Amino acid sequence: MKNLISMRDLSKDEILHLMDIAGEIEKGNIVPDMQRKLAALLFFEPSTRTMFSFDTAMKRMNGNTVIMSGTKNTSAQKGESFADTLLTIAQYADIIIMRSPIEGSSRYAAEVVDIPVVNAGDGANQHPTQALLDLYSIVKTQGTLENLTIGLAGDLRFGRTVHSLAQAMALFGAKFKFFSPSFLQMPSYIKDDLAEKNIQFEECPELDGNLDDLDILYVTRVQRERFADPEEYEKARGSYILRKSMLDGVKDNLRVMHPLPRVDEIHTDVDVTQYAYYFQQAKNGVYTRQAIISILMGEV
Amino acid sequence: MKNLISMRDLSKDEILHLMDIAGEIEKGNIVPDMQRKLAALLFFEPSTRTMFSFDTAMKRMNGNTVIMSGTKNTSAQKGESFADTLLTIAQYADIIIMRSPIEGSSRYAAEVVDIPVVNAGDGANQHPTQALLDLYSIVKTQGTLENLTIGLAGDLRFGRTVHSLAQAMALFGAKFKFFSPSFLQMPSYIKDDLAEKNIQFEECPELDGNLDDLDILYVTRVQRERFADPEEYEKARGSYILRKSMLDGVKDNLRVMHPLPRVDEIHTDVDVTQYAYYFQQAKNGVYTRQAIISILMGEV
Amino acid sequence: MKNLISMRDLSKDEILHLMDIAGEIEKGNIVPDMQRKLAALLFFEPSTRTMFSFDTAMKRMNGNTVIMSGTKNTSAQKGESFADTLLTIAQYADIIIMRSPIEGSSRYAAEVVDIPVVNAGDGANQHPTQALLDLYSIVKTQGTLENLTIGLAGDLRFGRTVHSLAQAMALFGAKFKFFSPSFLQMPSYIKDDLAEKNIQFEECPELDGNLDDLDILYVTRVQRERFADPEEYEKARGSYILRKSMLDGVKDNLRVMHPLPRVDEIHTDVDVTQYAYYFQQAKNGVYTRQAIISILMGEV
Repeated sequence: MKNLISMRDLSKDEILHLMDIAGEIEKGNIVPDMQRKLAALLFFEPSTRTMFSFDTAMKRMNGNTVIMSGTKNTSAQKGESFADTLLTIAQYADIIIMRSPIEGSSRYAAEVVDIPVVNAGDGANQHPTQALLDLYSIVKTQGTLENLTIGLAGDLRFGRTVHSLAQAMALFGAKFKFFSPSFLQMPSYIKDDLAEKNIQFEECPELDGNLDDLDILYVTRVQRERFADPEEYEKARGSYILRKSMLDGVKDNLRVMHPLPRVDEIHTDVDVTQYAYYFQQAKNGVYTRQAIISILMGEV
Repeated sequence: MKNLISMRDLSKDEILHLMDIAGEIEKGNIVPDMQRKLAALLFFEPSTRTMFSFDTAMKRMNGNTVIMSGTKNTSAQKGESFADTLLTIAQYADIIIMRSPIEGSSRYAAEVVDIPVVNAGDGANQHPTQALLDLYSIVKTQGTLENLTIGLAGDLRFGRTVHSLAQAMALFGAKFKFFSPSFLQMPSYIKDDLAEKNIQFEECPELDGNLDDLDILYVTRVQRERFADPEEYEKARGSYILRKSMLDGVKDNLRVMHPLPRVDEIHTDVDVTQYAYYFQQAKNGVYTRQAIISILMGEV
Repeated sequence: MKNLISMRDLSKDEILHLMDIAGEIEKGNIVPDMQRKLAALLFFEPSTRTMFSFDTAMKRMNGNTVIMSGTKNTSAQKGESFADTLLTIAQYADIIIMRSPIEGSSRYAAEVVDIPVVNAGDGANQHPTQALLDLYSIVKTQGTLENLTIGLAGDLRFGRTVHSLAQAMALFGAKFKFFSPSFLQMPSYIKDDLAEKNIQFEECPELDGNLDDLDILYVTRVQRERFADPEEYEKARGSYILRKSMLDGVKDNLRVMHPLPRVDEIHTDVDVTQYAYYFQQAKNGVYTRQAIISILMGEV
């Protein structure tokens, strides 16, 4: 691994190795020391949360960051090419962590510079560190990634998070249940891909009554903007809001995940149950990103 | 002490302990080591100076910070609740230092998260770290907090700094002189409180000629916006501008303090006198905040 | 050296000493340790690249930074004087690194505060750390600063970078060739100064065919805004764009430098030649700034 651009570049073994390293870092068995090392956080699109997580990951390892966010790049304003910006940043930092609204920009960056590049989200395309922290959260709570039953709820059409997760879990023989308003269903290309791999999936009309066999329920936000008709939105939404009362009879090991921020698709009455795992999931993101940075920088 | 939300939560002993720790940190007898530790600086309202001071405090202790300032919280823009924002930040940081325009928001935060919370100013309400650095500056220059004569000048009506200071110094048997334009006088609820505690205070019409018995003169800014009539402003202001010439005959141990920024309520000719203490006061803020953070994080 | 305000304040010996220190830092023979030390980066005018370079320099030495950029100084907005801002910052940091659109502001700062001040660019006036990193790049690639033949190309009229470089290299007996559109020629006061010091220079009409005797070709951006007539711009520009094909027959030791960002005054086909040195030059800026900070802070 020289860069982390897309989940599709990772083998099953590489994923498992990364999970191991994240676990050892969390337990304190591996303590990377990044003193005097620098990650450049290039956030051409704002994302407070993802930036915080990477910033934290680096500083928890005794390293530091230099940050360029939003429209602050005065050199680009003077007419500098994207390649030149990257080549200059590469003189300063040991690793580039990049968020961009433009698909493919991380892969381009990785071709231009000699230092490792991490894709922290490129448009609607990939957000591999989110997928990896999701996998880490699953293995940590379930003890395995193999043969789990995973529910995916919310906006399954546009949500890159659930796409990456479905593809990754397919490597481990998961069974899926999809919960979404009809016009936000999982895209055909993903379903075809799962079918080809003999991965079982079913589409469920609503959450209530369909949760009893799940090991993981992964809920995502449904954005109001996706709906032409506000009434349609209100109606659709109701069926996909998780409430505590729906969790009667679920498996003990069920964990409810969410990439955050949540709006109201998980009622706060779920927060106090043993099933709520979304905040711990955010914390797992720090360990996972420490593992990613450490591996790419050859520190572990 | 689990959090620092309001001066009213602190006992006399806790204040004195905190002063001791700040002193030992300044002298280098206590050297907290915050390596790999992180303070989240959440400044929902901008305040360059306060942020700098906390940022400096943490970094001087070999720790680091992650900063969210102003309107940069993209998760809130997506509809995330304030509680969720706090719960997520609490996954990343060891302590939250929070500035907000909304009264009570720090206390709310302390109820939501498990890590310590420091109130770095919540609207017109409290700014306890400013009060504590003021106390530290007083004890450092006077050798004691007991039985001092304290002049408070400027906007005594709206200035939360002087309110906190008056209430805190009342614990130590201070005598007060108040200097302010008539419609910016110390509010009745504070004066009633002092009277009830048998604390002496008098209201003086102007600075000149009334400074000879003071140990501390604490000057604050009078904001032009408080005055309906600009002429009134100019007239009122004149009586509350401290000039070097007014300092003839004051006590040797008098120190002039100001929370900064100053506009012109202390003439720069005072800066070169032995009485000027406002810039050292700012420096004391770093030691005081190091002490606060160290105590809350259990490092001392 | 207490501050670094202008190249004119530096003797030849001081420059050479600084080059030595930068070299030792780059080689790892000197490893400054700035743990718990803080540089205040005051960027009253944005300059992403320069800020990144200083930020990197400090963090690579295990130190840290506190950053105030652009219009974020809420104290100034409340009416605080520039002197008070500086005096307050000086309570927090060990060194001030300052960028300002106003000529002379760094020298003023150095008079106000007791801690070292580095001028990171003050309007059209001085940018001494750029000049020093240029000199470091020259000595590193040429083995000496003495008796070199230096070509300066682009906007020689308004470019403070080339002015500083010409004046500094004059100390070392350089010969110059100037390449610029007629109305962007090197100003008379610089040419008079060179003539007085018996420094040879000639003005060349175009790059092509005039590069064979150069040791260094220093190219700068020609800003479109300088031209009243866009056609004039397009015409002028063509003669001062460096292309790979023009480099046939140049000296082996020629290095092409550029302060970056580049727009198109160096064609990217030059990047792959052995002569291209502009990205390494940016990296040299980190070593040079580490040397400057270390010397001013008494660490070496």
